[in-house]
Amino acid sequence: VSVAVDDLLEEGLLTPAGFKESSAGRRQELLALNGSRGNFIGIDLGGTHIIGVLTDLTARVLDRVFFEIRPGLPVDIILDQMRAICGSLAGSAKATAGILSIGICVPGFINPSTGASIRAENIPGWSDIPVKAVFEKEFGRTVFTEDCSRAFGIAERWYGQGRGKKDFVFLDLGYGIGMAIFTGGRLHFGSSHKSGEIGHTIVEAGGRECVCGNRGCLETVASGKAIARDAAEGIKGGRSELLSGLTQGDAGSVTAQDVAIAAGMGDPYAGELLERAGFFIGLALGNAASILNPSAVILGGGLVGSNKVLVERIAGSLGRHTMGGIYRDLTLQVSNLGIDGSALGSAALAMNAVFDRVS
Amino acid sequence: VSVAVDDLLEEGLLTPAGFKESSAGRRQELLALNGSRGNFIGIDLGGTHIIGVLTDLTARVLDRVFFEIRPGLPVDIILDQMRAICGSLAGSAKATAGILSIGICVPGFINPSTGASIRAENIPGWSDIPVKAVFEKEFGRTVFTEDCSRAFGIAERWYGQGRGKKDFVFLDLGYGIGMAIFTGGRLHFGSSHKSGEIGHTIVEAGGRECVCGNRGCLETVASGKAIARDAAEGIKGGRSELLSGLTQGDAGSVTAQDVAIAAGMGDPYAGELLERAGFFIGLALGNAASILNPSAVILGGGLVGSNKVLVERIAGSLGRHTMGGIYRDLTLQVSNLGIDGSALGSAALAMNAVFDRVS
Repeated sequence: VSVAVDDLLEEGLLTPAGFKESSAGRRQELLALNGSRGNFIGIDLGGTHIIGVLTDLTARVLDRVFFEIRPGLPVDIILDQMRAICGSLAGSAKATAGILSIGICVPGFINPSTGASIRAENIPGWSDIPVKAVFEKEFGRTVFTEDCSRAFGIAERWYGQGRGKKDFVFLDLGYGIGMAIFTGGRLHFGSSHKSGEIGHTIVEAGGRECVCGNRGCLETVASGKAIARDAAEGIKGGRSELLSGLTQGDAGSVTAQDVAIAAGMGDPYAGELLERAGFFIGLALGNAASILNPSAVILGGGLVGSNKVLVERIAGSLGRHTMGGIYRDLTLQVSNLGIDGSALGSAALAMNAVFDRVS
Repeated sequence: VSVAVDDLLEEGLLTPAGFKESSAGRRQELLALNGSRGNFIGIDLGGTHIIGVLTDLTARVLDRVFFEIRPGLPVDIILDQMRAICGSLAGSAKATAGILSIGICVPGFINPSTGASIRAENIPGWSDIPVKAVFEKEFGRTVFTEDCSRAFGIAERWYGQGRGKKDFVFLDLGYGIGMAIFTGGRLHFGSSHKSGEIGHTIVEAGGRECVCGNRGCLETVASGKAIARDAAEGIKGGRSELLSGLTQGDAGSVTAQDVAIAAGMGDPYAGELLERAGFFIGLALGNAASILNPSAVILGGGLVGSNKVLVERIAGSLGRHTMGGIYRDLTLQVSNLGIDGSALGSAALAMNAVFDRVS
């Protein structure tokens, strides 16, 4: 350990921070991370947004950019926006040091050897995008890529509800649904870097067709995408005046956020939609828990923020659908990282590589 | 490593086995496990049988005892039989050395600190049995206890289809259904030693009530117990002359083995039962695979042996119910350890402890 510490001191990543008397009377030198030594960029491409963060070595967020994606935006424009966000953070006036490396997450499979994004089911036309190569060429820094749900899980383990936990799962509820699995304190990537596809576990055999090609996947009934789809149908069918008002009659523009707001205001139709989504999320999550026996299940992502109704429905369903002896041993928690979890996790991924390099 | 090797040589567990010239011209000493140095007992308490094996350090089976359990056998008699089997192996004329330690597996939750069996859902009345304490007192050897499906998984990892694999699952199909999960080459126990309860994942929401208290668990529709229950109903309803003949009219005595035999002979009703069981097993297994991204799914246990029809049905359903990109990266394999897998795994557990002790 001391060799690694010497290296970190020499590179200026650690700085002396005074002394402390230990209980044995020996004086111990305290060390602190030198936040000003290096900055990192984390970029999160979600189904409905791009978020970029600039952080220092202590994971303090120095700058942040948010860009909304409407479904159907062409892949070229999405990539251009990601580049623009990365460029704006790289040149940010709020930076405290040079950029050491960049982390980027995309929703879906990553090729772990090339860092390319193989496919994002929820972004039409997005396939075989050499994310790592494109950004390394443009920004001259090492780029690390990861799936967004796993990136969010990394942020939970470093900064969130997952601190100090060894066996837990993080459920990423957004436009799509993904999961990060930790076993023995480590992220489980799976044999080909594709673990955590709980959104494509089947909760209604023979149900609605999914973008993945199978039928009855969790994402077809409970994702942000599915809730928005059902809400639009409901508005057209005149089932909710409140949702109709919130979207000013433009049914197609309704989002899962609108449904959360309407349900919070007591709208029965919005409540039904979240009841159904929570039922199926709790079922799929209960099945995952019965297999994995986690000490905690952490809920996060865009669908969870200020959506108390959904969280309550998930909690109820989880209790009915997890094997009793396993349910009693787990805690259900809600992330406190908000919508930036995946971007923070991407920056952590980039940061982690710095420590791997010197240790 | 060399310190551990010296210890093993000193204790006689390793013996010199000649020399070999290495490519660099250096003479390397070869070592072999001294099979005659210690023997181990492995005992498997299943839902329908008790199997005991006596092995040496090279995992060769020196002696074996099989005892059939009819459902409803009192707990005291089951424990007495386990003791009798252990005693018979401990005094076996085929032993090549003294017993070093004993491994025992039971179906269900184990308390990892006390080695007690908390509960076996499929053995009525079996709860809070201090298995480790009872056998240590009677036989004067250290006893290790484990869940039977995890014990079978250990045997697969050491001797079976799991050799050399890092991320894989073993599905134990018998009177009940359990699973052993390996991540990064290690068995995943879960946060409270309860992982792998795939038999209690829910495949039919709101379905038939399960012994665990929930509804629609995989075990209610696809376990050996469920198949036998459905077969008995079918015989009573006159749906299969073949099954009726095989059981000589005693519908209650029909087993899942009988159904496998009848289906293999082309009996349509038996075929329907296995079609249905295979459908749900493939669904639950596909869901586990979509979450875990294993390189292999290994099928084993009493329900799989000489049951080609069921294996084919599982394979078909697994293909339809696993996310495509994950299904393409996995191999479906059938165990070649037969019905003794859990007993062999229990002996391996006992053996493993010897190496942990000296290394």
